[in-house]
Amino acid sequence: MNKINVGMVNGFDPSRLEDLDPAMQGAIRRRQALLGPAYRLMYADPVEVKRASGVFLYDSQGKAYLDAYNNVASVGHGHPRVVEAIHAQLQTLCTHTRYVQQGILDFAEDFVPSFGGPIEHVMFTCTGSEANDLALRIAKHKTGRNGIVITSEAYHGNSDLTAGLSPSLGKKSPLGTWVRRIPAPDSYRMKPREIGRTLASALQREIEELERRGEGLAAFIADSLFSSDGIYAHPTDVLSQVAEVVRRAGGVFIADEVQAGFGRSGEALWGYQRHGLQPDIVTMGKPMGNGYPVAAVAMSHAVVESFGTNQRYFNTFGGNGVAIAAAQAVYDVVREEGLQANALKVGALMQAGIGELAATHEGIGDVRGTGLYIGVEFVKNRATKEPDSATALAVVDGMRKRRVLISATGPNANILKIRPPLVFSPANADQLVATLDDTLKALRGRTA
Amino acid sequence: MNKINVGMVNGFDPSRLEDLDPAMQGAIRRRQALLGPAYRLMYADPVEVKRASGVFLYDSQGKAYLDAYNNVASVGHGHPRVVEAIHAQLQTLCTHTRYVQQGILDFAEDFVPSFGGPIEHVMFTCTGSEANDLALRIAKHKTGRNGIVITSEAYHGNSDLTAGLSPSLGKKSPLGTWVRRIPAPDSYRMKPREIGRTLASALQREIEELERRGEGLAAFIADSLFSSDGIYAHPTDVLSQVAEVVRRAGGVFIADEVQAGFGRSGEALWGYQRHGLQPDIVTMGKPMGNGYPVAAVAMSHAVVESFGTNQRYFNTFGGNGVAIAAAQAVYDVVREEGLQANALKVGALMQAGIGELAATHEGIGDVRGTGLYIGVEFVKNRATKEPDSATALAVVDGMRKRRVLISATGPNANILKIRPPLVFSPANADQLVATLDDTLKALRGRTA
Repeated sequence: MNKINVGMVNGFDPSRLEDLDPAMQGAIRRRQALLGPAYRLMYADPVEVKRASGVFLYDSQGKAYLDAYNNVASVGHGHPRVVEAIHAQLQTLCTHTRYVQQGILDFAEDFVPSFGGPIEHVMFTCTGSEANDLALRIAKHKTGRNGIVITSEAYHGNSDLTAGLSPSLGKKSPLGTWVRRIPAPDSYRMKPREIGRTLASALQREIEELERRGEGLAAFIADSLFSSDGIYAHPTDVLSQVAEVVRRAGGVFIADEVQAGFGRSGEALWGYQRHGLQPDIVTMGKPMGNGYPVAAVAMSHAVVESFGTNQRYFNTFGGNGVAIAAAQAVYDVVREEGLQANALKVGALMQAGIGELAATHEGIGDVRGTGLYIGVEFVKNRATKEPDSATALAVVDGMRKRRVLISATGPNANILKIRPPLVFSPANADQLVATLDDTLKALRGRTA
Repeated sequence: MNKINVGMVNGFDPSRLEDLDPAMQGAIRRRQALLGPAYRLMYADPVEVKRASGVFLYDSQGKAYLDAYNNVASVGHGHPRVVEAIHAQLQTLCTHTRYVQQGILDFAEDFVPSFGGPIEHVMFTCTGSEANDLALRIAKHKTGRNGIVITSEAYHGNSDLTAGLSPSLGKKSPLGTWVRRIPAPDSYRMKPREIGRTLASALQREIEELERRGEGLAAFIADSLFSSDGIYAHPTDVLSQVAEVVRRAGGVFIADEVQAGFGRSGEALWGYQRHGLQPDIVTMGKPMGNGYPVAAVAMSHAVVESFGTNQRYFNTFGGNGVAIAAAQAVYDVVREEGLQANALKVGALMQAGIGELAATHEGIGDVRGTGLYIGVEFVKNRATKEPDSATALAVVDGMRKRRVLISATGPNANILKIRPPLVFSPANADQLVATLDDTLKALRGRTA
């Protein structure tokens, strides 16, 4: 059972529509009619949501679901500070960056130093896809080259360009001819000490291939938690070795912080900082406005100088006053509520709790991650480490049945993806671990 | 003086920084340091904005600027109905489309019938660029071809793909090798009766060129008001002739309604409806959420069927509950406040008023447009129709000095672009016309 429904990990399979209760069937038929065939739902039994608060989503009957999946609502669903910052700014001014406004400058001044090194500018977009698309345009302009190297199951966006370098969109989603892939740092199957060297050598080979084809290396782009590759938070000496190869080839190193950024790793505000490297460009998105569409690209002056002089970039909504108010409020909350430290503490508790379950549940091959980004890998056999997608997906659906929302990831969809809002408490972590235990016991009962 | 500052019509030239007052100089230096070289400001003397309401922007000294430029704040800056809809939804739920939600279905059901014909689905993105990028991905997937035909000075977005088909970004912004251009329907210089035929023949030739190159025609995309080409609202028998050629070649017709849509033309909700044609895909953006980043692609089932089956599309913020609440509120206000009818009425008054100025101001070669999208073309000589960019830009800056905000457009930047919020009143129109008269008189005094 390695095939994923509708090309998506943990996607609802519409051919199973009649298994659902009539109200849900009706809603899904309306979705199909109105939104068309390109939309997907999560879970074998999709979830209807009506409202949300903190780490809970509620359906129309008032049933609560523990949200251990949504990194967008990073400071918690409906955080009043963010809601009120947006509301106040909406009443004041919501316009674009071709007029001078104070707020965007104050925010940039507060925010840019967090990146360190030569990063001195920030540009605003609305989505992480737009941020990566812009970062790649800048890198291509800077280098005069076209080639991009990514990790094996990367996801970097939904635009024509970024979908072309997002193999995790599925085998029917075409990769660009100018894209080449290196292995993900699979810490469960590779020797930790060799991972950095292995990836660096693979990158060197791919750069040579790009050069043989007249493309050359424009950029290497990676998410330092390798979320769609399967969540590999350790070792942390990998990307600095990769970055050295990128530099030697005259390429641009882009740190995609859409997943790892804003303190989620617990150990640093930005994921690349855990790897002790300094990227040329940092991109960010999802959690930046706690749901308000705001994203950004931070960069060194050197990398954007010629692009900025010869071209220009304007994003109608990007960096408008309300987007900035949302981003400022989120960044303030992350710091003032100590959410990075909370991610570290609660993530460690949860990882330990899940680790204990591994003692009694043979299917758990590996528990890994950092902060509030945790992967739990299911295998058919701990010796062969053969991926067990069926169990992982059954666990995801079993958790959903018990109203705890997570998902799965990796090329075989056999790795639980646990990525709650950063305000997750120790009690929330306990609930998740207990529910996982119940789910695994029930599954074992079923197969026994 | 045909050269445009910094590659952009009506862009501030940073080499003139020292002409500005010290506070503005300081703010611009901060912008350059923090946001980098790719950002641009409008006007020789950039405008600082602090708040906005209705059709007025205010600077930090409380000075009011009449906004005759911003189509984003289409129902008026800070419209309370939109602000409160966003606020209420922010407190309730802001999450993505992979859970079932009622609001998006209710909105789609209300909205989709407005497109007519075979259009039955709507998909949500955050920006018009994302909408066009997705529309083109769908068209390329549907046809299995790559070639795109556009009008001469089109603008369709800022993503890698859409910037590649946006010649109005300037000569240093590279066009895709798979992009070909046909003339804009220049009603001031071409015989109106011949325009449709001329464009259709030009398209036929470009399709043949694409076929000779093995690209073939994936899509023709146009803004039916031809905003960046120079604003050509008439004749309205042009695009149906073009669409016929597109159909014959098996291509997809994409109506880019980012500029013309939501009633701005006064004559129809959607610009393509003025041309009596039925597109395969309709894209929209800017005014859709009155500043909230929401945009969309509407399409027939036939055009998206294979894309939706073989691929998928997910946009983290696109179609989230708050985006939908904003879009629903704007669409309600457009209908309930009769803004399409207002655009027709006030636009006609304003065009007539500007037309009268042409009697005493020789430099005005043409006044055109429809509803609240008006172009005023400046020429050095009414017989030769030689474009007069210098005067057009002096008028834009003179209006700005008198605190009425407009801009310029067209390949020679010699056409005033007047595109106010749709709540513009007859009194606002009078103020604009009177200010234009004063500005022209002052300019004439200076050159006399």
